Amino acid sequence: DGGSDIDHILETQSALAVDLGGTNLRVAIVNMKGEMVKKFCQPNPKTYEDRMGLILKMCTDAAIQAVDLNCRILGVGVSTGGRVNPKEGLIIDSTKLIQEWSGIDIRTPISDTLHLPVWVDNDGNCAALAEKKFGHGREVEDFVTIITGTGIGGGIIQHGELIHGSTFCGAELGHITVSLDGPECKCGNRGCVEAYASGQALQREANKLHDGLYSPTQPYADLLMKEDVALKASEPATAAHLINAARLGNPNAEAVLRTAGTALGVAVVNILHTVNPSLVVLSGVLASSYLAPVKKVISQRALSSASSVTVLTSNLEDPALLGAASMVLDYATRRMY
Amino acid sequence: DGGSDIDHILETQSALAVDLGGTNLRVAIVNMKGEMVKKFCQPNPKTYEDRMGLILKMCTDAAIQAVDLNCRILGVGVSTGGRVNPKEGLIIDSTKLIQEWSGIDIRTPISDTLHLPVWVDNDGNCAALAEKKFGHGREVEDFVTIITGTGIGGGIIQHGELIHGSTFCGAELGHITVSLDGPECKCGNRGCVEAYASGQALQREANKLHDGLYSPTQPYADLLMKEDVALKASEPATAAHLINAARLGNPNAEAVLRTAGTALGVAVVNILHTVNPSLVVLSGVLASSYLAPVKKVISQRALSSASSVTVLTSNLEDPALLGAASMVLDYATRRMY
Ligand SMILES: [Ca+2]
Ligand SMILES: [Ca+2]
Ligand SMILES: [Zn+2]
Ligand SMILES: [Zn+2]
Repeated sequence: DGGSDIDHILETQSALAVDLGGTNLRVAIVNMKGEMVKKFCQPNPKTYEDRMGLILKMCTDAAIQAVDLNCRILGVGVSTGGRVNPKEGLIIDSTKLIQEWSGIDIRTPISDTLHLPVWVDNDGNCAALAEKKFGHGREVEDFVTIITGTGIGGGIIQHGELIHGSTFCGAELGHITVSLDGPECKCGNRGCVEAYASGQALQREANKLHDGLYSPTQPYADLLMKEDVALKASEPATAAHLINAARLGNPNAEAVLRTAGTALGVAVVNILHTVNPSLVVLSGVLASSYLAPVKKVISQRALSSASSVTVLTSNLEDPALLGAASMVLDYATRRMY
Repeated sequence: DGGSDIDHILETQSALAVDLGGTNLRVAIVNMKGEMVKKFCQPNPKTYEDRMGLILKMCTDAAIQAVDLNCRILGVGVSTGGRVNPKEGLIIDSTKLIQEWSGIDIRTPISDTLHLPVWVDNDGNCAALAEKKFGHGREVEDFVTIITGTGIGGGIIQHGELIHGSTFCGAELGHITVSLDGPECKCGNRGCVEAYASGQALQREANKLHDGLYSPTQPYADLLMKEDVALKASEPATAAHLINAARLGNPNAEAVLRTAGTALGVAVVNILHTVNPSLVVLSGVLASSYLAPVKKVISQRALSSASSVTVLTSNLEDPALLGAASMVLDYATRRMY
């Protein structure tokens, strides 16, 4: 009957989603239910030209595959690190984790090549949109999300809408300062939570530990391990090695993670005392490691009126990518930018 | 003519304003133009009973004087430290600077005694309302105010409205943490900007300096001064002495003020990276001392997209008190709480 025809048409409506992170460039076909029908991943190129070329190629390839997968693509949603003007489709000012990516019109080349409408927003903001449509943020008026990857992104939903701010620099939650001194951040400031608790910050500390460990007096058990074998001096250490070392009881690794968790908790307390959301959603690979320390810091440091906040880890696979898709799925029928 | 009769009636419409701070209890008669027709000030009593008694007495006296001054009082506006539920007229959770002031219904006793409608909000929020109606915040969609007195209060206007937050704990900007360690704050946290840059924090540092100065080796010029005479060891030092000492070139006093200014600047940067206002208004007795350091810290530490923010000192005499009045002047005709 007619009803199921319409249902079928609605079900085939899909989005192309692009996520530009500090490490990877990812493209996905996402359907109305928020399912990732197909996902593609490449290292994010280092130059504008290579990056834009790869975006266009991956999107074109994905659009061709979408036909075979019976997905009708309504538009392209782009999530990127850095400050974004979503109305104009511009990246105003990039994160230092992505080079040659400031003052970029990203909408025009994608729209011209794919002949589809294009939406763009900051990656943390996209993660918040994904939580709002598919995750813990459904039906929640005021919530905040913090996504930890190579860097740290954030998104704030206030009265059901993103806070973009007066110059599109709202919810840059990775650059909340938690220490007047503290480690240097890529942004030029020091003591940003990103400089303590991002994947890159943990990797920096892992390598410091790793370099310092190869003294003749160091017990074997304190070395960073890779599947129970000590990392060689020449091998680079990663955040994963650090987390593993902490799990094995290495006190230096534990101390680094403790400080990172405290820094993230203090950043969350600052957010509570500024916009006072009812929910904070942590996402990204480190979210589960940070849940307990963030809750603990809130109980120790937040004003009692704010400490009733719920803190959860995201149950979404790829919030920034999914949020990029959600702009398309929500706005395409309304042609709203 | 009829027009000027109506003008005259509108001009006589006034508010009783009450401001409860960490040190003083102030009451004023404020007219439609934001003029303080009459102002009364007493030390804020230390107990609930004394405080409420004094509020009612000062308001009753002011209401009587208002008749002679040809001011028609439309209602009472109350500004207070602590977390306030403005809908219910409740102080949920007080600042530690005001004792016996949590879980208080402040609307009912005032309304019952004065037979007038009563509005209540947090003091920093009231300061923001005053800037919006009478100060630099007129016609500005997104701005923030920070008011420094005994403590530090804040208010955030987003899309023309106060951010109260999900549990009335938004814009508690004095308790933004700028240091993982740092001095203990009255709120129970440590490293809050209030613990660095409030009047009380400066007084604490002034007394530390003053106590440390009376060693036999200390040069006379480094002592804290009161009108060019050295403070006696037994005299208590104040924030004013500290500021005076810094002005006279005392390096210890300068260092304390520098740290305070940096802390306030970093708190402002955190606010810029969270709600990204186009304007920050500094008010309170220390505002002019903090203007230059706050601007400097923004230029050093804020993301470039956020650093275009305008920072001004308030041109209002008493923003919290005036904001308390503005609730009455704006809402009385609409009976809106
Ligand atoms: Ca963001
Ligand atoms: Ca406030
Ligand atoms: Zn930073
Ligand atoms: Zn505090």
